[in-house]
Amino acid sequence: MNYSKIPSAQTVVAYCKAFGIKNIVISPGSRNAPLILGFNGDDFFKCYSVVDERCAGFFTLGMAQQLNGPVAVVCTSGSALLNYYPAVAEAFYSQIPLVVISADRPTYKIDIGDGQTIRQENVLEKHIGYSANLKQDVNHAVKAIEHMAPQLLEQSQQAIEQFNAGEVNKALGVAVSKKLPVHINVPFEEPLYQTVQQPTIGAVKAQFDREISKNDFSELLTTWHGAKRKLVLVGTNAPADIEQKYLNRLGEDASVAVLTETTSNLHHGQFFSSIDSIIAPIEKIENSEAVFEALKPEVLVTFGGLVVSKKIKTFLRKYRPKYHYHIGQNRANDTFFTLTRHYKASPKDFLKVLYNEKSAMQSDYRDAWMAFKKRYEKGRREYLGQIPFCDFKAFAIIMETIPATYQVHFANSSAIRYAQLFNVDASLKVFCNRGTSGIEGSTSTAIGASVYASTPTLLVTGDLSFFYDSNALWNNYIRHDFRIIVVNNSGGGIFRILPGAENTEQFATYFETRHAQTAQQLCEMFNFGYSRANDGESLATQLAHFYQISDRPKLLEIFTPVELNDKVLLGYFEYLRKR
Amino acid sequence: MNYSKIPSAQTVVAYCKAFGIKNIVISPGSRNAPLILGFNGDDFFKCYSVVDERCAGFFTLGMAQQLNGPVAVVCTSGSALLNYYPAVAEAFYSQIPLVVISADRPTYKIDIGDGQTIRQENVLEKHIGYSANLKQDVNHAVKAIEHMAPQLLEQSQQAIEQFNAGEVNKALGVAVSKKLPVHINVPFEEPLYQTVQQPTIGAVKAQFDREISKNDFSELLTTWHGAKRKLVLVGTNAPADIEQKYLNRLGEDASVAVLTETTSNLHHGQFFSSIDSIIAPIEKIENSEAVFEALKPEVLVTFGGLVVSKKIKTFLRKYRPKYHYHIGQNRANDTFFTLTRHYKASPKDFLKVLYNEKSAMQSDYRDAWMAFKKRYEKGRREYLGQIPFCDFKAFAIIMETIPATYQVHFANSSAIRYAQLFNVDASLKVFCNRGTSGIEGSTSTAIGASVYASTPTLLVTGDLSFFYDSNALWNNYIRHDFRIIVVNNSGGGIFRILPGAENTEQFATYFETRHAQTAQQLCEMFNFGYSRANDGESLATQLAHFYQISDRPKLLEIFTPVELNDKVLLGYFEYLRKR
Repeated sequence: MNYSKIPSAQTVVAYCKAFGIKNIVISPGSRNAPLILGFNGDDFFKCYSVVDERCAGFFTLGMAQQLNGPVAVVCTSGSALLNYYPAVAEAFYSQIPLVVISADRPTYKIDIGDGQTIRQENVLEKHIGYSANLKQDVNHAVKAIEHMAPQLLEQSQQAIEQFNAGEVNKALGVAVSKKLPVHINVPFEEPLYQTVQQPTIGAVKAQFDREISKNDFSELLTTWHGAKRKLVLVGTNAPADIEQKYLNRLGEDASVAVLTETTSNLHHGQFFSSIDSIIAPIEKIENSEAVFEALKPEVLVTFGGLVVSKKIKTFLRKYRPKYHYHIGQNRANDTFFTLTRHYKASPKDFLKVLYNEKSAMQSDYRDAWMAFKKRYEKGRREYLGQIPFCDFKAFAIIMETIPATYQVHFANSSAIRYAQLFNVDASLKVFCNRGTSGIEGSTSTAIGASVYASTPTLLVTGDLSFFYDSNALWNNYIRHDFRIIVVNNSGGGIFRILPGAENTEQFATYFETRHAQTAQQLCEMFNFGYSRANDGESLATQLAHFYQISDRPKLLEIFTPVELNDKVLLGYFEYLRKR
Repeated sequence: MNYSKIPSAQTVVAYCKAFGIKNIVISPGSRNAPLILGFNGDDFFKCYSVVDERCAGFFTLGMAQQLNGPVAVVCTSGSALLNYYPAVAEAFYSQIPLVVISADRPTYKIDIGDGQTIRQENVLEKHIGYSANLKQDVNHAVKAIEHMAPQLLEQSQQAIEQFNAGEVNKALGVAVSKKLPVHINVPFEEPLYQTVQQPTIGAVKAQFDREISKNDFSELLTTWHGAKRKLVLVGTNAPADIEQKYLNRLGEDASVAVLTETTSNLHHGQFFSSIDSIIAPIEKIENSEAVFEALKPEVLVTFGGLVVSKKIKTFLRKYRPKYHYHIGQNRANDTFFTLTRHYKASPKDFLKVLYNEKSAMQSDYRDAWMAFKKRYEKGRREYLGQIPFCDFKAFAIIMETIPATYQVHFANSSAIRYAQLFNVDASLKVFCNRGTSGIEGSTSTAIGASVYASTPTLLVTGDLSFFYDSNALWNNYIRHDFRIIVVNNSGGGIFRILPGAENTEQFATYFETRHAQTAQQLCEMFNFGYSRANDGESLATQLAHFYQISDRPKLLEIFTPVELNDKVLLGYFEYLRKR
């Protein structure tokens, strides 16, 4: 075993070990050498090297998302740290314990013209669970203290070591207990490369359990049992999080409409999984207000993280339920401006209570929703039979052919939006970065998420998101069973369906950002198998062997007609309306 | 002409025009539609579209650097803004007026689970000249105000328009007068795409002149004339900034040693342009302290921005001059912990005074430096004759063959460090992002800088920096005469020369980040001409036509032996020491 000679580096390494943070993603540098040496010197850790810090941030986030626990990402001083910020914001809103560790120059070298220095302390503070700004060890500190008596120096060093240990403990505690990203900033003075065999610093981990309040659901239960129109809306939710028997009970209750999203990872025949297919057509009918009134719930219960569907947000903000209860151990969002109460509990706890109460009641509320579901299911089949090849049709085919049990990542925003219009097999595990809904890290996240996955991983992405995060492929840890499907519509096709956007050159340049790139050269560069499709037939041919075992990862690029996609999508809702 | 119907969008557009900000770099989105429509609707503006906001930030920075004035970069809401942060930090430390304009969702939709929202207000505040957080126009605002009387509504709107105009005025004023990046955050409510023919908002630009204090240099002049050992050190400095006759006078003075860097863009036969070639060999000789004492100045005068050479920083911190005067209109850095006074004036003003005073005096100070310069010039020639092909030799050849008057950008960090070891033709204009010395935006900056350049542009970069910023090539504004030289040593070769770094697998993975990529596929993807060299002969062959006129941009990739580069470089200083 080898450790950096620098005490603060030892502290960081020792506490990461004490907190069980095994996985460390490192970007190159020299200021962070004490940390690199420390993490590499102890076999407890598994280290990964990713050069582009923006990708490293999302790669780490993907890993932490899957492990449901903290993973650390380590960079050198200067602007490197700022490249983590998009992933940190995503982690903040998706509540993923991303542990950012940045090496820094000593404080006295900030803002005096030294190289690779910025103001790193608290620089992520608007989107962070805790910022630990460590102090520099005195034995490596400024000239000024050389005059100090050895005893005073020793005392100062002890005080600094205690302070640093306390701060790292707090930061990692927040990561574990609150599932938030944290930032540990560690100033180092040269020499940076000295090592010792035995560390002088140990770790005394404080206890930080997940906050679980013993909840008394009586208020919610009273409301629940008194209401004949109950809507349950589930946002982003980890797969296999809730036992199926609890869901089944919910599905049996005719007074309950359960609206799920593709990222909810919940499945039941009586649930409603394609919210937009129900709501979008209603928006355009003549008596839409009356129809929406009939669907308006008395009580809304939400679980999980952020909700993809804009349409359900608009609906619930306009047709506000009298009560909105959110159940979840993390943050509760007042998305519909009507939040009654946040139960800081696991949704399972509530569902268990309901399960034991056998609370089903007579109501026609679920059936009101079901009429629309049946309509779109039939209409979708018919419509798919009539349209030419396009994004909509490509997604219909993709969604039907993903092999069972795959982990599937959808990129923002068109990929996840299209996916939500189709059924998803209940055995799939679905993810999407909906914390900030950014396009910058979908590929890196999927690669990070695949590393420890028990099944293969598929990423389905649009072209803009894919090319944006092309550096994600510059990664030595991509499994041979990793698969990417790029739906390439030559630009940001999603902007085409926005109301008011016109079909002008200005539109093509600044909103849609039309381009003619393909993923082929990137596949050559990063040793991915590459295939392409541009109609239903070639897509079927390619998909026939796309998921087969291979000796390298594969990418399938599907070209769709840019001018057609928006018309087909808007036509779909129109078709459903008219039926 | 077409304008967004939204008053705050009109305000931003009107003030950009009033401040003469013609160039607007836009990344796609829908929340920023009011700004895109506004900037596109007025022929005064020239708009550019760049998808990856990190690249867009540096592209804009490069343009602002060349125009020596503000250029705006516009993004949608959410994490998009965070991708600008590396460029903003670089602009902050390099004092470049990068105007960041972010569209935002209305305040009441932040932190309630709405899509693509983060806490945008003041999010860049640690590295920004001014953050203008605009208020949302009432006519598009929340339900709550629908109950307001029309007259009150009108008054509120007027107050908001005044506030917003004031804030935009302040922000742009800071960009212009202080040469700092600024951030204007603009919340928009839907509908976003409505336009009008006539704007309702005009701009009343406040006066913000560059702060120029009338300096009385008498204190500095007294010190200057009383000192026989004067060192002038020039950091990053715009080309053609100082008239040659003033420099000549400085060069005639035997009591003055002028140390320049490649980024100083100052040239004179009596100046010292390769600081490391002088100082590095002295560090290793036996009587180095006595030699350094002989080179130690009584007075140090600095101009320009940040200094590349670490060796001169170490030298001047240890052998501190009695006086350090910094002359410059921007920030003064106390890099050597001995700053006496900052004259907030143009260096020209001081040099003009000196010129008129004819202040040359008898001294052997410059000659003390000159002895070392002659030694390394001869030694370098000899050494180049003895070594095999490697980074050092490649740079020697590159630096000799760049056509006259080219604009040359060097990436961080090995490229600029190697460049500093060789002479640079006085007609070249040299740039490097030394504000934060990051590797993430060198290519984008060079492309942005080339757009309005009167001569062709060359970027010289290492492989890590080039692959890091590969999305820079996803840009529709790359001129046919743009040239890139990638010195590919299969990883971060610069880390190899760090003391203490060992030759282990751990080293190759985490410090050096060894890889086997080439730039060839990226060239195919983005339609660059591609050629390669791997020895002196093939390099000479390729360079013979590399700079010739072509119908597309070109990239030359030079492969150098990873194991050899550090030995040759350290051997160079050792060779100079022994001579």
